[in-house]
Amino acid sequence: MNGWNLPAPDQWEQMAWNSFMEDLGNGDLSGACLDPEHITSWYIEAQASGVVCGLGIAHWLLRPEEPRPDLGIRVLRTDGDRVERGTRVLEGRFYSAAIVAKERSALNYLMLLSGTASLTRKFVDAVEGTQAKIVDTRKTIPGMRSLQKYAVRCGGGTNHRRGLYDGVMLKDNHLMALGGVSEGVRRAKRSAPHTVKIEVECETLEQVDEAVAAGADIIMLDNMDPFSMREAVLKHRGRCSFEASGGVSLETVAQFAATGVDLISVGMLTHSAPSLPFHLEFERDPL
Amino acid sequence: MNGWNLPAPDQWEQMAWNSFMEDLGNGDLSGACLDPEHITSWYIEAQASGVVCGLGIAHWLLRPEEPRPDLGIRVLRTDGDRVERGTRVLEGRFYSAAIVAKERSALNYLMLLSGTASLTRKFVDAVEGTQAKIVDTRKTIPGMRSLQKYAVRCGGGTNHRRGLYDGVMLKDNHLMALGGVSEGVRRAKRSAPHTVKIEVECETLEQVDEAVAAGADIIMLDNMDPFSMREAVLKHRGRCSFEASGGVSLETVAQFAATGVDLISVGMLTHSAPSLPFHLEFERDPL
Amino acid sequence: MNGWNLPAPDQWEQMAWNSFMEDLGNGDLSGACLDPEHITSWYIEAQASGVVCGLGIAHWLLRPEEPRPDLGIRVLRTDGDRVERGTRVLEGRFYSAAIVAKERSALNYLMLLSGTASLTRKFVDAVEGTQAKIVDTRKTIPGMRSLQKYAVRCGGGTNHRRGLYDGVMLKDNHLMALGGVSEGVRRAKRSAPHTVKIEVECETLEQVDEAVAAGADIIMLDNMDPFSMREAVLKHRGRCSFEASGGVSLETVAQFAATGVDLISVGMLTHSAPSLPFHLEFERDPL
Amino acid sequence: MNGWNLPAPDQWEQMAWNSFMEDLGNGDLSGACLDPEHITSWYIEAQASGVVCGLGIAHWLLRPEEPRPDLGIRVLRTDGDRVERGTRVLEGRFYSAAIVAKERSALNYLMLLSGTASLTRKFVDAVEGTQAKIVDTRKTIPGMRSLQKYAVRCGGGTNHRRGLYDGVMLKDNHLMALGGVSEGVRRAKRSAPHTVKIEVECETLEQVDEAVAAGADIIMLDNMDPFSMREAVLKHRGRCSFEASGGVSLETVAQFAATGVDLISVGMLTHSAPSLPFHLEFERDPL
Amino acid sequence: MNGWNLPAPDQWEQMAWNSFMEDLGNGDLSGACLDPEHITSWYIEAQASGVVCGLGIAHWLLRPEEPRPDLGIRVLRTDGDRVERGTRVLEGRFYSAAIVAKERSALNYLMLLSGTASLTRKFVDAVEGTQAKIVDTRKTIPGMRSLQKYAVRCGGGTNHRRGLYDGVMLKDNHLMALGGVSEGVRRAKRSAPHTVKIEVECETLEQVDEAVAAGADIIMLDNMDPFSMREAVLKHRGRCSFEASGGVSLETVAQFAATGVDLISVGMLTHSAPSLPFHLEFERDPL
Amino acid sequence: MNGWNLPAPDQWEQMAWNSFMEDLGNGDLSGACLDPEHITSWYIEAQASGVVCGLGIAHWLLRPEEPRPDLGIRVLRTDGDRVERGTRVLEGRFYSAAIVAKERSALNYLMLLSGTASLTRKFVDAVEGTQAKIVDTRKTIPGMRSLQKYAVRCGGGTNHRRGLYDGVMLKDNHLMALGGVSEGVRRAKRSAPHTVKIEVECETLEQVDEAVAAGADIIMLDNMDPFSMREAVLKHRGRCSFEASGGVSLETVAQFAATGVDLISVGMLTHSAPSLPFHLEFERDPL
Repeated sequence: MNGWNLPAPDQWEQMAWNSFMEDLGNGDLSGACLDPEHITSWYIEAQASGVVCGLGIAHWLLRPEEPRPDLGIRVLRTDGDRVERGTRVLEGRFYSAAIVAKERSALNYLMLLSGTASLTRKFVDAVEGTQAKIVDTRKTIPGMRSLQKYAVRCGGGTNHRRGLYDGVMLKDNHLMALGGVSEGVRRAKRSAPHTVKIEVECETLEQVDEAVAAGADIIMLDNMDPFSMREAVLKHRGRCSFEASGGVSLETVAQFAATGVDLISVGMLTHSAPSLPFHLEFERDPL
Repeated sequence: MNGWNLPAPDQWEQMAWNSFMEDLGNGDLSGACLDPEHITSWYIEAQASGVVCGLGIAHWLLRPEEPRPDLGIRVLRTDGDRVERGTRVLEGRFYSAAIVAKERSALNYLMLLSGTASLTRKFVDAVEGTQAKIVDTRKTIPGMRSLQKYAVRCGGGTNHRRGLYDGVMLKDNHLMALGGVSEGVRRAKRSAPHTVKIEVECETLEQVDEAVAAGADIIMLDNMDPFSMREAVLKHRGRCSFEASGGVSLETVAQFAATGVDLISVGMLTHSAPSLPFHLEFERDPL
Repeated sequence: MNGWNLPAPDQWEQMAWNSFMEDLGNGDLSGACLDPEHITSWYIEAQASGVVCGLGIAHWLLRPEEPRPDLGIRVLRTDGDRVERGTRVLEGRFYSAAIVAKERSALNYLMLLSGTASLTRKFVDAVEGTQAKIVDTRKTIPGMRSLQKYAVRCGGGTNHRRGLYDGVMLKDNHLMALGGVSEGVRRAKRSAPHTVKIEVECETLEQVDEAVAAGADIIMLDNMDPFSMREAVLKHRGRCSFEASGGVSLETVAQFAATGVDLISVGMLTHSAPSLPFHLEFERDPL
Repeated sequence: MNGWNLPAPDQWEQMAWNSFMEDLGNGDLSGACLDPEHITSWYIEAQASGVVCGLGIAHWLLRPEEPRPDLGIRVLRTDGDRVERGTRVLEGRFYSAAIVAKERSALNYLMLLSGTASLTRKFVDAVEGTQAKIVDTRKTIPGMRSLQKYAVRCGGGTNHRRGLYDGVMLKDNHLMALGGVSEGVRRAKRSAPHTVKIEVECETLEQVDEAVAAGADIIMLDNMDPFSMREAVLKHRGRCSFEASGGVSLETVAQFAATGVDLISVGMLTHSAPSLPFHLEFERDPL
Repeated sequence: MNGWNLPAPDQWEQMAWNSFMEDLGNGDLSGACLDPEHITSWYIEAQASGVVCGLGIAHWLLRPEEPRPDLGIRVLRTDGDRVERGTRVLEGRFYSAAIVAKERSALNYLMLLSGTASLTRKFVDAVEGTQAKIVDTRKTIPGMRSLQKYAVRCGGGTNHRRGLYDGVMLKDNHLMALGGVSEGVRRAKRSAPHTVKIEVECETLEQVDEAVAAGADIIMLDNMDPFSMREAVLKHRGRCSFEASGGVSLETVAQFAATGVDLISVGMLTHSAPSLPFHLEFERDPL
Repeated sequence: MNGWNLPAPDQWEQMAWNSFMEDLGNGDLSGACLDPEHITSWYIEAQASGVVCGLGIAHWLLRPEEPRPDLGIRVLRTDGDRVERGTRVLEGRFYSAAIVAKERSALNYLMLLSGTASLTRKFVDAVEGTQAKIVDTRKTIPGMRSLQKYAVRCGGGTNHRRGLYDGVMLKDNHLMALGGVSEGVRRAKRSAPHTVKIEVECETLEQVDEAVAAGADIIMLDNMDPFSMREAVLKHRGRCSFEASGGVSLETVAQFAATGVDLISVGMLTHSAPSLPFHLEFERDPL
């Protein structure tokens, strides 16, 4: 959870805190039954195999803030690592009442982000040996885009543009409103900052030809069959990049990669990845 | 999206706006290519069958704010309605540049919440005819709890407590820290407000007996097999409510319902429901 | 100011800071006359007898943030302690300019919360030896509910539900809209989560009978005379809890307690408790 | 609630909304039992005599937002008006579920602010016919200063400085740190903006002489007996203003006014005024 | 102030409101002297010639919110228009007390943004007839970037990247840390999203050659003399874009344009443009 | 950046962070090319002579947060110090990626605030030896008032009122609405708190006479020629303070000071001061 192309810490820390507050509300009625001074050794372990992601958030939520020799936390794996059922990823020693209050928030992030990282890894593995990169989309969970895009990177994927602001993408609706591909590219060249590229969504080979001729930097081949994709790539190779999109699943992704496209975008990485299960347990025999 | 046990409008409106901002950042570079005065008729339709949820948010994001006779929006279905592939749920007429900027935010909510509502509906249908209610858990997407719990209701499910603050639930970790079920219930009765009930997670029939004897209001039968569950229910029926939890899938849920439990909690409703696909299209021949 | 059924520290710390900002505005014109390096020993003492509450906030506002051997702060009493005129509750050594700027904010909290704790203590003492608990209401100062409810606990009282969200309470207006007690309880059982209880406000013994029959968990006896209360309690004892409300003063509370009710709610604890005076003084002969 | 020396509407509207949210939390479990379309006529009436204040906030919270002929709200009195037990101050027609959810928030403001206005009015009446103005202090409820100062004006009182930023006030602690009155005034003249005046808290006549000689604009006579106050006023009349402070009650205030001071500051207006009771009722026979 | 590559209205409206709050604080002590019902006709006029910018904000701040026939506001010019001393740009009729409170906030925006627009226009005019575009930099006033970049467009200029997030720019410090131009470009190609371009700051012709060879999309010629710039442009024309930077003034900009560079970046547009004076006057003979 | 008549640290820290966020957006695409563990020695130096201001903010942004022996930061000058071209003001050792991300934010503050401090110093020097103080105005950059007023003090200037809330100033528009000077002063005496003074803007000697007679505390001589100013000062000296305003430049300020006025207000200090250039460089031979 560091590096300068990530959400700033004050952002994900605030998100993590907010989600704890969402759960805590006006106080933990169950935790209030515990002795507030009671201390426990605890650990989080995976309950299925996959790729772990979100350890920074879980660590931040469950860390003791005061430096005391009898309290602590230890991160046992790194975001992006493969885990198996039973792999411990985090362990610590802290007030029991704090752990029971915060564990759900920590696990909810861990399960969500590891779900995306794990599914991404499966797609990346499926196209191994080809030139194709697996990229994400803007079909993300509201409020979670930066973290989900981080999870995609942890799974070995590559990020597409992060929003409407850092790349031009002319889609079918834009083209209908603009009256066609050439006019769209012409306008984008005039209005976009000189630091971003222009991508055009094409559904036919005619549109591809038109987009390349107009000077598009990237062509998205949308819902095309692999044969047409192959034809587009062969015809215009070297003049622009190609992105395959639509109908991509774990079963079909290798076929798309074989067409020679540079990028394959997969919406389900961020909108339909099943969560990877983790649970937090107190040690029976404390440290 | 109304009624007084929902997130307040100013909350989901703020969330919806924030997620649009997350996407928009410093401006829509693609939409900037369009004529800002260009107006289009558009519609959103389902791309698979399921239960729609989130129309209030989509409507709020895509509505024209100024009252003008040539602009408008119309909601064609109600949250909780079943939809088929091709069912139109929302249609309108608005500035094209506004629609291309906001469509992704609206669709992201619609796909996420309809995914949860649709999966909930399948579970509810699977236990039809029994006394068992399908309830959700705290395993929600950070920041989305209220909306996901609304989606569960739209799918025919029932909500469990909303957080740590509106019910007591003593789980395995609490019981280990407290030294047992009886002590846990005793403490909860002392410290919790008199307006909330006390639920205890039990993994064995001995724990069930102890919890009932201590005066617990609700017993969660955690990861028990249906036969043991049945035994617990038969033995203590009428003295408390019973909730089945753990290992519940569409394949097994009917078995759990057959044990006579009052509630069956299903985590996947809110952590692993695949999204229900929708897309927004411009009308070829505008209204 | 700790424990897991309290407002989270980041909430009351933010409140405390905001109230300091409310006072400070664009800067302390009076404190600007002082030498910014001038250091003073100071103390806060009670100016009347009562129960102190709010020391955590006062401590947080007046503490030196840097660890320096010549600066410090010491809490001399604990929230809930009885104090007399002249009892010192907090003392320290800090920049004079910081203390004159922040003292008013600290004292305003201390005086308000100690006022509520002190009045609560008088009510609790007045019913000592009975089974009745003194509970608070939702008649709180806007923005202060969590802290005032904490003050009630410090004074020996018990908290009622914290808001509209953690308990059902059907009052006269609800019952008029619903058409009566039975229908009200029936609907509440259907719509409320299974983790909360149902309380009904009754003004007559007939309503009490109806509420008990409908399965209400708690009966509020509203503005009834003690004899009717006694009758209600005797008739239904063991089937639900009873709460007395309305017309409760220090003079009458013992009478209410003698009826056998479980709870007596007192609005003035949080809307009309006179503040308990404290002042902050600089030491003439510094430590 | 208008005029340009008031908190801006966006501030008290936000406060009012926040206090409703504080009560509502995640939804009104009791109001959820009502038919969401059920409409009721309602009114708020005083339950004791005093001065009403806060009608703007109550109106804002309880107003129907949509313009519909069958819904409405009517303000029947103006902030600052005297009311008797039974005086109706506000009435309307709105969704029953909305009214039961919001009434407590509206009443909590009304009771608090009317309490301050009513007590202020008693003090103002007690000094009628003298030149003395009743002024408030900084001993306010955290977060409520602007509204409480408004309530003081509604009760006929006058506001002192609003915080640390709009006037210089050198108190005993400042003077101890500065080494005396003369040095304090000298420094204040140098550091304060030329647009604010300088007030000094004096406990002895010697301090008064020193402060006047140093050029203080206002002298606060702190905890002095009326005879000494009278002496100070007679000696320095015309050279500065005088403010009496300390030990002021409804019984003693006329004596203080008789000394010829210009201002009498009364802390209890804002820290210990008992609330003025109001309740909201549904009409038995709707409009 | 519309269009989809602008800051969203809710952002600049919030900024405008905040700056009014910064000025208003706890109330307008001067405006409080006016009759709150007094209405005035007013206008804003330029006091020097230049290009106006910021009318949307001024309009938003000074508009009457209620629709009343005797109140109003009229925008007389459009952002980007040239104005002379005495040109009226906005006029209206509103409460006098509101206008004296808000005029300073409106004028402060108008003066700042028109200052930037006016200076930009001078630069753009100075390079008229060449292919060179005048672009802004990240040397903006904290918090004002989006609005200042809008002002640059109103003055006929073009925006560079808006921040660290929508373009790669390797400057001298990056290159020193990375060990040279080739390695820098290589790494950028690997880590940046495929939708953004890569710009390299070069101080020597050797660096230019290296950057072009490495595949940089844009070369910034930093603090080079026009002859070297010309040489660089001639040698690599067509393989990338060129941006001149450093030492650009109104006197020298034409020389830079003559070198054939595509872009000339000018920091002073946003960090040192003198404000364009405007004042608001009440009409002597009201409308 | 300390002392109690300054914006509170939590305010300028928040502003500094927000301006970094404004630049960083979703991540630094250029800094992402650097090795995240790479550490550099860096310094900031002035590129022209003037008065430095804003070092506290620059220090706060560029400081290493973790205490590590190989990282650090050192402030080499104090706000208000004169600097020459080449004067180092701040140096440190930190992660290269952090420095390239944050340097622009730090420099933008430094350049803006030093610009104001430097220009103020020139005005103050120009009136040296007279009794006149150079004061600022409300013509500030939106959101920057407190910091710009601090910069004015660092340049040797004095602050006027900080906003509408801490002084009364009746300007031409107020007087037109009020019907004249006498009525204006009369009303201000009634409505303003007793802790602030009353200033009146006068354009003629007749207005001056009227204002003095009405008891104004301060007279602003607006756009008067020096001879008339002198006349006004001589006639009423000792009865109020005088402030010169309008048409003040570095060339004319000494003339204004010679009239005997107490204060000269200069709008350009805060709306048109050119920035003072600074840059940040990595050390070629690290520490």
